[in-house]
Amino acid sequence: MILMIPRYEQEEVVKIWSDENKLLLWQGTELAVIKARANSGQIPIEVYAEINAILMQNPIDITIWKQLEKDLRHDLVAFLEERRRFLPEDLKLYLHGDGMTSYDTEEAAFARMLKESISVTTGEYTELQEILKEMALKYRYTIMNGRTHGQEAELQTFGKRCLTWYKDLQVSFENLQRTTEALKYSKLSGAEGNYGGIDPEIEKEALAILGFEPFYGATQIMPRELYAPIAHALSQLVLSISKIATDIRLGARSGRPIYQESFGKKQVGSSTMPHKRNTISAEQLEGMARLAKAFSIALTENIVTWEERSIEQSSVERVAWPDLFHVTVRSLKTISKILENLVVYPDNMFLEIVDSRGNYASSNAKEVLKEIGFTFGLSTEDAYRILQLASFNVHEPGRKEEKLRNRPPESFEESNELLHIFQTFEKPTPISIQYIIPKGKLRVSSRLGATESDIQRWNETLKKIFQDTKNLNKWNKVFMPSYILRHEAVLYEEILEQ
Amino acid sequence: MILMIPRYEQEEVVKIWSDENKLLLWQGTELAVIKARANSGQIPIEVYAEINAILMQNPIDITIWKQLEKDLRHDLVAFLEERRRFLPEDLKLYLHGDGMTSYDTEEAAFARMLKESISVTTGEYTELQEILKEMALKYRYTIMNGRTHGQEAELQTFGKRCLTWYKDLQVSFENLQRTTEALKYSKLSGAEGNYGGIDPEIEKEALAILGFEPFYGATQIMPRELYAPIAHALSQLVLSISKIATDIRLGARSGRPIYQESFGKKQVGSSTMPHKRNTISAEQLEGMARLAKAFSIALTENIVTWEERSIEQSSVERVAWPDLFHVTVRSLKTISKILENLVVYPDNMFLEIVDSRGNYASSNAKEVLKEIGFTFGLSTEDAYRILQLASFNVHEPGRKEEKLRNRPPESFEESNELLHIFQTFEKPTPISIQYIIPKGKLRVSSRLGATESDIQRWNETLKKIFQDTKNLNKWNKVFMPSYILRHEAVLYEEILEQ
Amino acid sequence: MILMIPRYEQEEVVKIWSDENKLLLWQGTELAVIKARANSGQIPIEVYAEINAILMQNPIDITIWKQLEKDLRHDLVAFLEERRRFLPEDLKLYLHGDGMTSYDTEEAAFARMLKESISVTTGEYTELQEILKEMALKYRYTIMNGRTHGQEAELQTFGKRCLTWYKDLQVSFENLQRTTEALKYSKLSGAEGNYGGIDPEIEKEALAILGFEPFYGATQIMPRELYAPIAHALSQLVLSISKIATDIRLGARSGRPIYQESFGKKQVGSSTMPHKRNTISAEQLEGMARLAKAFSIALTENIVTWEERSIEQSSVERVAWPDLFHVTVRSLKTISKILENLVVYPDNMFLEIVDSRGNYASSNAKEVLKEIGFTFGLSTEDAYRILQLASFNVHEPGRKEEKLRNRPPESFEESNELLHIFQTFEKPTPISIQYIIPKGKLRVSSRLGATESDIQRWNETLKKIFQDTKNLNKWNKVFMPSYILRHEAVLYEEILEQ
Amino acid sequence: MILMIPRYEQEEVVKIWSDENKLLLWQGTELAVIKARANSGQIPIEVYAEINAILMQNPIDITIWKQLEKDLRHDLVAFLEERRRFLPEDLKLYLHGDGMTSYDTEEAAFARMLKESISVTTGEYTELQEILKEMALKYRYTIMNGRTHGQEAELQTFGKRCLTWYKDLQVSFENLQRTTEALKYSKLSGAEGNYGGIDPEIEKEALAILGFEPFYGATQIMPRELYAPIAHALSQLVLSISKIATDIRLGARSGRPIYQESFGKKQVGSSTMPHKRNTISAEQLEGMARLAKAFSIALTENIVTWEERSIEQSSVERVAWPDLFHVTVRSLKTISKILENLVVYPDNMFLEIVDSRGNYASSNAKEVLKEIGFTFGLSTEDAYRILQLASFNVHEPGRKEEKLRNRPPESFEESNELLHIFQTFEKPTPISIQYIIPKGKLRVSSRLGATESDIQRWNETLKKIFQDTKNLNKWNKVFMPSYILRHEAVLYEEILEQ
Repeated sequence: MILMIPRYEQEEVVKIWSDENKLLLWQGTELAVIKARANSGQIPIEVYAEINAILMQNPIDITIWKQLEKDLRHDLVAFLEERRRFLPEDLKLYLHGDGMTSYDTEEAAFARMLKESISVTTGEYTELQEILKEMALKYRYTIMNGRTHGQEAELQTFGKRCLTWYKDLQVSFENLQRTTEALKYSKLSGAEGNYGGIDPEIEKEALAILGFEPFYGATQIMPRELYAPIAHALSQLVLSISKIATDIRLGARSGRPIYQESFGKKQVGSSTMPHKRNTISAEQLEGMARLAKAFSIALTENIVTWEERSIEQSSVERVAWPDLFHVTVRSLKTISKILENLVVYPDNMFLEIVDSRGNYASSNAKEVLKEIGFTFGLSTEDAYRILQLASFNVHEPGRKEEKLRNRPPESFEESNELLHIFQTFEKPTPISIQYIIPKGKLRVSSRLGATESDIQRWNETLKKIFQDTKNLNKWNKVFMPSYILRHEAVLYEEILEQ
Repeated sequence: MILMIPRYEQEEVVKIWSDENKLLLWQGTELAVIKARANSGQIPIEVYAEINAILMQNPIDITIWKQLEKDLRHDLVAFLEERRRFLPEDLKLYLHGDGMTSYDTEEAAFARMLKESISVTTGEYTELQEILKEMALKYRYTIMNGRTHGQEAELQTFGKRCLTWYKDLQVSFENLQRTTEALKYSKLSGAEGNYGGIDPEIEKEALAILGFEPFYGATQIMPRELYAPIAHALSQLVLSISKIATDIRLGARSGRPIYQESFGKKQVGSSTMPHKRNTISAEQLEGMARLAKAFSIALTENIVTWEERSIEQSSVERVAWPDLFHVTVRSLKTISKILENLVVYPDNMFLEIVDSRGNYASSNAKEVLKEIGFTFGLSTEDAYRILQLASFNVHEPGRKEEKLRNRPPESFEESNELLHIFQTFEKPTPISIQYIIPKGKLRVSSRLGATESDIQRWNETLKKIFQDTKNLNKWNKVFMPSYILRHEAVLYEEILEQ
Repeated sequence: MILMIPRYEQEEVVKIWSDENKLLLWQGTELAVIKARANSGQIPIEVYAEINAILMQNPIDITIWKQLEKDLRHDLVAFLEERRRFLPEDLKLYLHGDGMTSYDTEEAAFARMLKESISVTTGEYTELQEILKEMALKYRYTIMNGRTHGQEAELQTFGKRCLTWYKDLQVSFENLQRTTEALKYSKLSGAEGNYGGIDPEIEKEALAILGFEPFYGATQIMPRELYAPIAHALSQLVLSISKIATDIRLGARSGRPIYQESFGKKQVGSSTMPHKRNTISAEQLEGMARLAKAFSIALTENIVTWEERSIEQSSVERVAWPDLFHVTVRSLKTISKILENLVVYPDNMFLEIVDSRGNYASSNAKEVLKEIGFTFGLSTEDAYRILQLASFNVHEPGRKEEKLRNRPPESFEESNELLHIFQTFEKPTPISIQYIIPKGKLRVSSRLGATESDIQRWNETLKKIFQDTKNLNKWNKVFMPSYILRHEAVLYEEILEQ
Repeated sequence: MILMIPRYEQEEVVKIWSDENKLLLWQGTELAVIKARANSGQIPIEVYAEINAILMQNPIDITIWKQLEKDLRHDLVAFLEERRRFLPEDLKLYLHGDGMTSYDTEEAAFARMLKESISVTTGEYTELQEILKEMALKYRYTIMNGRTHGQEAELQTFGKRCLTWYKDLQVSFENLQRTTEALKYSKLSGAEGNYGGIDPEIEKEALAILGFEPFYGATQIMPRELYAPIAHALSQLVLSISKIATDIRLGARSGRPIYQESFGKKQVGSSTMPHKRNTISAEQLEGMARLAKAFSIALTENIVTWEERSIEQSSVERVAWPDLFHVTVRSLKTISKILENLVVYPDNMFLEIVDSRGNYASSNAKEVLKEIGFTFGLSTEDAYRILQLASFNVHEPGRKEEKLRNRPPESFEESNELLHIFQTFEKPTPISIQYIIPKGKLRVSSRLGATESDIQRWNETLKKIFQDTKNLNKWNKVFMPSYILRHEAVLYEEILEQ
């Protein structure tokens, strides 16, 4: 049985949620019950031995099972009929005997499928974290602009960004682990959970054989409150992955990508534009997140049923659980592959910092100015406004650009021409706030409120402050990466060495 | 390619969304473009004739296509390579020529798949409505308790309930039809929708061949704003269906079902409780609604993409569109089957009305009492409170029941005994508000605020009022089904005879 | 500031999420940082003492804060300006000093608001569970039909149903508790989480003052992976509540309600139908669940942001967190009120069992028949089919009903007449499967496949079997509530006595 | 009554959904019914005149209404009580008479609130589209890199991007308009929609007074199938807005923004980093989209109710409709404000094109090479691969960069030093594919599969081809903006001049 479309399905997940596996697990429950009854002396021990031997020798025939289901309109009863074919009359009544209800058989099997799927998920997660750990170490000293609101912010290392990705995933994974607490339990307590059939003692023993403890307080089924958090946790894991994928898409934007997805030597980027190197895998992960959220929403609704249960939840679970695992496992594999092969451009990271014109240190610069400036009469507010003005000053447009901003081209001919002009445009050497502030070279900006006289006062004070070499050294120090990043080590220690 | 799990998949939908069909529709777009270019004189007419003949003679080989896709990581380019295998060198450049981008080829194909799927949906919807129409007519005079808040309310016919189901579906279906307005359009306007490749004129002609008009304002793709309402409309249709299914579940509750799902002669109700006749199909429709909502949510998110497009939407669409149609078509078929074979119990509907003890007419009774009572000094408020009190009075428990309500059994032995007693319990003949009000037989109820003296006053007034036979006749008339339902005909006329 | 509509808002929640409280908590963070710096010797201890004294003496002025925010377009900076009004120049730079970023101040405050809200939630949950516990004990021996698929199933007690409600809530609440693990942590690690400002040591100390540990691996903000599970857990708790509410609505359906919401003595059921006693509170809880799910979905999306953060999450959190808590706390209070005042009808529970005509024991009856019947040549399959046939037999319609089922009324006059007839309809004394099976009184049912000859064979065998009084006693025993419910005690022990 | 948090609420929406307005609209329904009854001769015409006069003279007292609601637990009945205070006894029974049910009064009022809110929405939408239209015209010739997958793609104008935004919004708005078809209808057909009270004729007349037609097929309420599409359409409109907001965030990323949100002269960008100019308004719109989706999901669930209705939908509607309109109207206003004040940098758009090194024309270049190259033996595949290789060649890193990519820095000291070096780094003059292809200067790229001998063959052929000036001219033409964008005019015509 294939659940997800072949394009996205994961072989391990297909296997776990196959009819073959499900029926085998159903048989597992049935045999555990018989064994428990035999162990407790309720039935002769030979009964178990015989039934076990017969069923093991006769594999389940899926085709016959499907045929029977059509008539009976009941998959579990069809399974029992298929199995009873091989049992002598006097053993038949032991199979699914003692007032067992279908979901007595099915619940443990279902929980085992969840467990197996989570184990596959855990395996993939572990590999992914290994990759991120290596990246964090490899780029331990590769500095880059951190970005908040998409804007150049303070300096950080690329290794540290990898660490935050690592940690996001860890939070989501630990959350997933907590939700699997629910999988400790199962039930064999009959049609309404009050042991109309099987005794509590037999339940305990049979469940122990299958690796579970009894859940006291079930109805015909386990409450779906137990499983909804697992679905949500899986969707959250995919969301964490898609957050990383978004960061990769953002970093890969041309013209000056800081990293890109790897590109196959024979790969084709676009059917029409041969130069394209698209972040198609990362983008797909956004699609995966949309799907994962949807499946989680549907599975959460399964909590509500009527009284001692009705069967609304079943069709949702047949579709959404395996599909959610397909999506999760595929997402883990995809992001691992993207990261493992990520083409990283430290050169562009450096160039980006240079282009920030000192702003990468504006926070520390402001603090040092506040501190030194205080005795020179600069207020906290002044320090802030000086840094802000300087950051606008270093990005002030030239005359040609200014003009263009005020009057965009008015014909394509003008555009042709402008393109020609810009092709030979020489960028002025970038000036930095590190330089203009100590020199007192602030200028009026049309986009900020500071007046000519404010600025004059500031410039004079600044010159006075930085005549003192001690102050200037203090100032220059805050622009050194090694200074700014002096505390990043603690993150490595705390996150990777736990 | 199988998308939905076999249990729920619909053959027609499988076919439409198969790779085979998709690639055939891609070829359709490619040929339409070549034809349009030939028609306009841009390329020789023989080019089209030749290419068309060759491609028609050489069916698409899905296996080779899949193989090519693995290397190229681009499904459309893989398709072109597969097709070009059969073309002589000088014809190759015409296939997907003129700067076409992948989505030029794919969008029209995609819209056609949506159209075909909606056409299947429409067919199933039409059959369903025929069934409901017949039911409405068959049960035109079968009276029943309407229910609001699950409580017996006024009288209606079962035919009328069928009409409201019919109408709910109609509203949802007409909404679906309105959303398909979007499927008039497609695009061939190149990598960014500004005709970098194909001319606007060629686009118009090629799209006309495929049954579309150009959408001006596309990017690389059609905006997903066009399709999200379709997804929502489909999920809404399934919700309307699940509303009907809920009503069937509610009516089928034992002890006195008013209708039930049919039950196969060999069917098995429960693996452990042989007497069960469960509403499993109706319940499954609640599950289908959960899935439909989820798919619609995921598809709606596809509206947001980056700039001239990125490819987040693709994976969602591959999974969620076909699955949403599987769910919709299956839901339509299931509810049709349930309704077509519904076992209806008019006898129980009558018994239910009798058990409402006249309350089925309480609204009309109140109105007539207000009207007649006015000249006898009964206020609007009085009339209301009299009817309320009477309705409590007719359901007042006997002494035995009262006692039990105050003191539930305190051991299972007591329960055993009580069960024995209740087995021979004779229900008192039900009294009706139709009788006790004109007789002035209201009594104090511990559960309402009316005082002994209020009630005495009311009883006396009531007796006075109903001494007049004219008033009594008026009173009795409002308890006649034919009177209460005198206006239902207008619904039949307006709904069925449009 | 009022968030939820007044109708649904909860005073405690309003208070926690008010601007007043938020700003006070921001001040709390600021003071903790200054204190920590003082403790570590980074700044003079008097600085903390002075600032603390001044700020405590000058309460925050919300009006001024709002005014400042308009100009600055930054709520945290506006808050700092408002606070700095009272500080002498030399102390100003210590407030929000050392390179702190806004979210350094806000994150701990936010986590504290979550903690406080969850504490309110916990209080309401605890009261609710006390009510359910009492109900479980009060109705320890009040037997009722369990219902699966809305159908009479096996016997249980109403106390046990209360226990399963209790347990569902417990599962959801323990899940909520597990998610609050996230609230152990907060951050003061600066604009990108790498301690550009505050030292790791100062962070540790300041957070300890506020009751937190540092979260290593934050960006500018705490990852929203920490909080999404809390939102989901809250919505799940409301879903568990709405499941109970649904059960109450189902049990309250007229004609023979087993319980009802209490009804105020002056209450009005419907503006037009005075007899109505609607389950309006329980129905509202379904609405609350719809809202809770929606808020949880929105909050889960907050996981994805760009790089070191952008601010998409903020507007969602301002609205959805308080609203989700309003909905949760209100739902807890509403269900508590419904349950505390629930009007329970044990008499109707007994009558319902009687009307099930022995089917309440069909599972146990089948098991005993399988066991006894085996030596008489009855197969497992026979036993099942006998019970199924008997259960159909005891519900076989009379001739009058049969006729009506085949030919519904064809005019309202006919309906009038039929209603009259049914008003005096005498129900035949119910027969039970407990009786007809041992007597061998099975009859052909048109709705099942068993043939005349099958049935004859079965009847003869049954008579033979039950000639033996020992067998008859065994048979009758399984119809005794005390027998069927012999194991319910274990649920009470395991659930209530933990 | 305040619904949304003050931060986001919209005054017009507050007013429409206020209790004051709601009660006034309820009174409107009541009066319309009385007037219709009077018009039809059912009651004396003076009755209407008198009641109308009295109610108009006595404004509704909200405080009293709220008090009454507490006792009665029914808001509509409380309203009637408040109104009846002013009516003489003989007129009282006409108010809400003739068997009207609460929702007869409420449905028309509710639909009118929806209509009014949509009218506010339409007003804001219209203003937004005016702004976009102006932008489209202003930037009619301002060329920029289109971007697909975040990568430089073909050339377009910024005006054209504005046009696609305009069109996206138009599609969503026209969809909204289609859904309002539902607001043509209302109902006065009583407790179950079958005219137990008011006659069909009176309904028709009364609804006409209020501007509606009767909806035949209602239950107690209008089916929520009518309104769910409106909610979805509103959320879709917000999604379209958030798509534009995302594009703005992407374009505003530093280092070379192509546009930015405007920034107040006194504005503060970050509490710690003075240089920040964050896209906070655009980011907030992503949050608004999350909220809008959530409200739409909750409102869609309202379709399902029980039988002739229960009241699950009410609480959802009280919260989610006004909040959805707050979010929608606010989003429209915010995006209008962002766009109206958007700071556009045509200079940076040009620089971006230059940096694409000719790739902006790669699609057209490939087509022309295919066409010219054919007679020189270049296959379609060759043409594609040549363009791809050239595009890699022009971005090949220098030796210094290459080295850094292979060996990232291994200490912060190294980083310090590298930053120093890069600060004086001179970028080599960019070479373009426009130049290297005709010159036959392709080189091996380590990242693509083309071999040395392939490339040699290609280079020779290329040189041969472009010896012919005619071919070279053809080639150069496709790099001219005026050529590439020759068809954009059709978009302006079709979109703006309809």
